[in-house]
Amino acid sequence: MSEDMKQAALDYHEFPRPGKISVELSTEAESQLDLSLAYSPGVAEPVREIAKDPENAYRYTAKGNLVAVISNGSAILGLGDLGPLASKPVMEGKALLFKRFAGLDSIDIEVDAESPQAFIDTVARIADTFGGINLEDIKAPECFEIERVLIERCNIPVFHDDQHGTAIVTAAGMINALEIAGKKLEEASIVCLGAGAAAHACMKLLVNMGAKVENIYMIDRTGVIHSGRENLTPEKAAFASETDKRTLDDAIDGADVFVGLSGPNLLSGEQLSKMAANPVVFACANPDPEIRPELAHETRDDVIMATGRSDFPNQVNNVLGFPFIFRGAMDVRATAINEEMKAAAVRALAELAKEPVTQEVLDAYGLDSLEFGSDYIIPKATDSRLLGAVSTAVAQAAIDTGVARLPLPDNYPLS
Amino acid sequence: MSEDMKQAALDYHEFPRPGKISVELSTEAESQLDLSLAYSPGVAEPVREIAKDPENAYRYTAKGNLVAVISNGSAILGLGDLGPLASKPVMEGKALLFKRFAGLDSIDIEVDAESPQAFIDTVARIADTFGGINLEDIKAPECFEIERVLIERCNIPVFHDDQHGTAIVTAAGMINALEIAGKKLEEASIVCLGAGAAAHACMKLLVNMGAKVENIYMIDRTGVIHSGRENLTPEKAAFASETDKRTLDDAIDGADVFVGLSGPNLLSGEQLSKMAANPVVFACANPDPEIRPELAHETRDDVIMATGRSDFPNQVNNVLGFPFIFRGAMDVRATAINEEMKAAAVRALAELAKEPVTQEVLDAYGLDSLEFGSDYIIPKATDSRLLGAVSTAVAQAAIDTGVARLPLPDNYPLS
Repeated sequence: MSEDMKQAALDYHEFPRPGKISVELSTEAESQLDLSLAYSPGVAEPVREIAKDPENAYRYTAKGNLVAVISNGSAILGLGDLGPLASKPVMEGKALLFKRFAGLDSIDIEVDAESPQAFIDTVARIADTFGGINLEDIKAPECFEIERVLIERCNIPVFHDDQHGTAIVTAAGMINALEIAGKKLEEASIVCLGAGAAAHACMKLLVNMGAKVENIYMIDRTGVIHSGRENLTPEKAAFASETDKRTLDDAIDGADVFVGLSGPNLLSGEQLSKMAANPVVFACANPDPEIRPELAHETRDDVIMATGRSDFPNQVNNVLGFPFIFRGAMDVRATAINEEMKAAAVRALAELAKEPVTQEVLDAYGLDSLEFGSDYIIPKATDSRLLGAVSTAVAQAAIDTGVARLPLPDNYPLS
Repeated sequence: MSEDMKQAALDYHEFPRPGKISVELSTEAESQLDLSLAYSPGVAEPVREIAKDPENAYRYTAKGNLVAVISNGSAILGLGDLGPLASKPVMEGKALLFKRFAGLDSIDIEVDAESPQAFIDTVARIADTFGGINLEDIKAPECFEIERVLIERCNIPVFHDDQHGTAIVTAAGMINALEIAGKKLEEASIVCLGAGAAAHACMKLLVNMGAKVENIYMIDRTGVIHSGRENLTPEKAAFASETDKRTLDDAIDGADVFVGLSGPNLLSGEQLSKMAANPVVFACANPDPEIRPELAHETRDDVIMATGRSDFPNQVNNVLGFPFIFRGAMDVRATAINEEMKAAAVRALAELAKEPVTQEVLDAYGLDSLEFGSDYIIPKATDSRLLGAVSTAVAQAAIDTGVARLPLPDNYPLS
């Protein structure tokens, strides 16, 4: 970012008042009568009703529309472990996005925990306050255990967006990219550069949607993760290949798909040129992708490319997922966000990209036209149809898989 | 409450949407540029600034204006231990009052902790999220240890309102009542019926302001707390009297002051008639006081009476205190709310009651006039001068005692 942009970002956070979110009254509280209903003595009535039946908390409090964005600050953006307090602008930003895109009330909670167990205990103890929990910027491998245990202990949706949000949007783009490339997910050979939380979730979701685990080469700092390596974490072991390929150079040869969730400029033009025909390259490192789109298109003209950046086509942007996934899950009071709900979100996103683009989207990007194809495989964040499409798909999948406690609301599909 | 009022209270909580608070954007977030400043990539800048200096969290996030209202639900109103979730309407109500009266953003957190230590650990770990912590509806004696340890572990104000808020408003009314009665706090003999959290905080604050501990008789379910009793908690032991008085009947004989923080109708007309001339009776049990004002005034015409009810004169109402105390403390970034700040709040409240009443207040209560005297010893909750008076006094006391990290803000006194 330029120095001007950096200062603009600081000013944006400082003025007109520090931060990006506020808490407001959602009801009238001016008169003495209002106050006697809102607090003493009136408030005793909803207290009694909730004591009788905990589900009444959804009826008489803000719980059902409230998402906590919770972090320990151990993996903030690409900046690393800067601690919980430094993560607060990111968590507030996420809360802002929940409201802006899906109307969900959202508050950030930064947890200063001495261990993963302490983090888990803390979040589990405050979980009843909320209708859903979005975990954020927690480093691997701790994030796997943290999420697994919290899902077990909480009866509300718990979702680590860095894993599953990224995976869902990536998978949606991947399905469309492969269709355009004339390939099948079931047959595609996939190189995943990076073996962190997002990489694992992406590969796991692609496998759940049809990719073959034996066609996946996952690469960490040591090289290709293969069955001969020792001391692999359980997550890495799940993707250990029976192969004699050892390096990115080895693995990329003839590959159909490259998914980068690693760092800047780690895929060379030469490596790209060794991939199969119509290669699909998702270079998602932010802000600098594994290979710059200019270099990729210079190297070969059959590449289908996505990045994490808003200034190139096909942005893999988590905001396409999490606001609507939580909206759909919480509107049917789902007890979890399961694999089927994630897959439903993937399909809804992939299908929306095939719909004719609205004038609203064209205007937002200053475009005359935009059609499904190699430069448009994923919906744009400004597409207001995302809310209806994704939340309905997720809510319906929750109902179909028996984790919903309410039917589809009358106001669905949302718009 | 009537059945109609109960239903009105439930309706108030359910419509137009469940609950009483929402989270909103405090900044523009419409355009792509806005979003690139609010979240990726712009958000990295405030993250870096906070990592360099934690104080920058006050500059770039909502922390400095954010109060958590935290409970374990172990002593909800007068309803007892109904658990954390059932306390949510009360905590949301408190959050609403923080905003309504002092413009503070406030969010409720309900903690389901298996022990006081687990509660303490949980709150301490999430404390950095907030600019202040208001503890609420936590039962005695656990609340004493919980508050004490959290004050030690947190560098933001931690304040158990059931104790200190009640104490501050009671003490303010008491100072004025004794002045009207022509008595001195230093000489007054005081009977305190009830020995819970609020009772201890009230008596402690009165002692700090001049009352003599040897003039206080505190009474629990067993009777007068005296030095011959065994197994007293440290809090009760601090008020154990060297006396042969054993019952309320014994203690009330000739007493100047009765403070009731116990239950309905526990002070009889006969007992009131045995008090000294111009007795001061604060019958604060809610909703039914220790003695009904009608009975008190019937029994003797020299009584100066306060209750917790809004439908009688002299309501001891915590909302006169906590919003403005936190406002003042947080505006100078105080690291704690110390005894001097509490005493400053008491004096500011007591003095405001001596100022001529504004038309605004008269209109709110449908009164033609209201003057300092036995029916007006405490300001009314609708008095908009409370914000300026109490927050300034508290902020100045924080500065004077060295716990403030900022000078008095330019916009002080607030109005």
